[in-house]
Amino acid sequence: MNKIGEFHFVTEEYLLDFRGRVTIPTIGNYLIHAASNHAALRGFGFNDMTERHTAWVLSRLAIEMFEYPERSQKITVYTWIDEAGRLFTSRCFELADEAGRSIGFARSIWAAIDMETRRPTPLDIDTLSAYLSDRPCPIDRPGKILPIEGKTEGLPYRIKYSDMDINGHLNSIKYMEHLLDMFDLKLFGESEISRFEIAYLSEGKYNMPLTLHKSEAENNKYSMAICHEGKAISRAAVTWKSASHLI
Amino acid sequence: MNKIGEFHFVTEEYLLDFRGRVTIPTIGNYLIHAASNHAALRGFGFNDMTERHTAWVLSRLAIEMFEYPERSQKITVYTWIDEAGRLFTSRCFELADEAGRSIGFARSIWAAIDMETRRPTPLDIDTLSAYLSDRPCPIDRPGKILPIEGKTEGLPYRIKYSDMDINGHLNSIKYMEHLLDMFDLKLFGESEISRFEIAYLSEGKYNMPLTLHKSEAENNKYSMAICHEGKAISRAAVTWKSASHLI
Repeated sequence: MNKIGEFHFVTEEYLLDFRGRVTIPTIGNYLIHAASNHAALRGFGFNDMTERHTAWVLSRLAIEMFEYPERSQKITVYTWIDEAGRLFTSRCFELADEAGRSIGFARSIWAAIDMETRRPTPLDIDTLSAYLSDRPCPIDRPGKILPIEGKTEGLPYRIKYSDMDINGHLNSIKYMEHLLDMFDLKLFGESEISRFEIAYLSEGKYNMPLTLHKSEAENNKYSMAICHEGKAISRAAVTWKSASHLI
Repeated sequence: MNKIGEFHFVTEEYLLDFRGRVTIPTIGNYLIHAASNHAALRGFGFNDMTERHTAWVLSRLAIEMFEYPERSQKITVYTWIDEAGRLFTSRCFELADEAGRSIGFARSIWAAIDMETRRPTPLDIDTLSAYLSDRPCPIDRPGKILPIEGKTEGLPYRIKYSDMDINGHLNSIKYMEHLLDMFDLKLFGESEISRFEIAYLSEGKYNMPLTLHKSEAENNKYSMAICHEGKAISRAAVTWKSASHLI
């Protein structure tokens, strides 16, 4: 089987933001769909992992977009594994428009955990290695995000039913939604997110009292965190650039 | 062209709730996808409406589910128009599992509005009437939902970036999410929603301060409302039944 997975999407108007553009969380869903199906077709999907009492956990994700698709546009997501280690797998993505032009790239780091202990468990490197590809992914790897949780007071939030995933934890995409909701609408009108990076540090549970933090680290670059009892369960870094096409 | 639209979906594990089942908001997204594409293929979709400076607005929606799909299940959504009036169109849906068995039905009422005035505008009955079907939809039509907003204090909520749709208003599916989040998780563990009905009365805007209301009208049947300055912008009625298969 081909090492590179190829998945097709058509943007839908009822999933677009107020500017008529695809959002970072929706792109996140496309990437997870692609990752999940690419893995399943090659024998290491959700079902295969469940049989071994293990589950994939998204550990880090970085998305860089040059252009945000608008209404009724066809998008192709390519995905491949570029590294398989004992505890982590690195998966890349390229997004292309209908003409085949790159509109963005993403990098993700996944760990396998034991479903009982929720602790990392060794990966089947031999199986995964058969699918390694050196296709280029010209964006920075997800890196260290500096803590900011002591610096800002934080906006309170409690995890709700709609926030939870099949494992009973805060859904990876919902972390993104809640973080992006901290930015003023004006910023979305004037700018676009050129890079969004998130690190998942521990699992949010139902009704858990959280605080959401945001701090401008340098011009147009923000550090963010989601904390529980003062300790980060997630950190993010968001870089904005002037919008190339404004509404 | 066939009067009945047929759309296929496969449930995805990262969109399921903590019970591993498809949620009412996700079903709502399937229905809107089906409605939107059925209309577009027959010349009265989003683009066609925009050309006439009009837009479809979902006015009422009732969903009855006999069974909730679980992980990696194939679902078919059938949709058709059963009535076309001067100001409203009634559209039905049937949901079927892979074996072709009905797992639910839905009914929706749509109005066309002028994009400038945001007021109702007459529909092109002749075009729409060519597609009327009398395929049975054996669930009650969306009806009157009694006001409850005076009865309960209400939970405060403000409309955020991720809540907004392409028209800059609260997304139809987000109304559902915020309402369902008012129910305790215990209820989702013990019961299933057998009927969910919602009426959209006016449009929520960014940062609008809202209150969310819930009151048990009779056993297992709740009336709900989303209010702005004490006036309902949406009302909903939710009927629960004991879960046929518990986790």
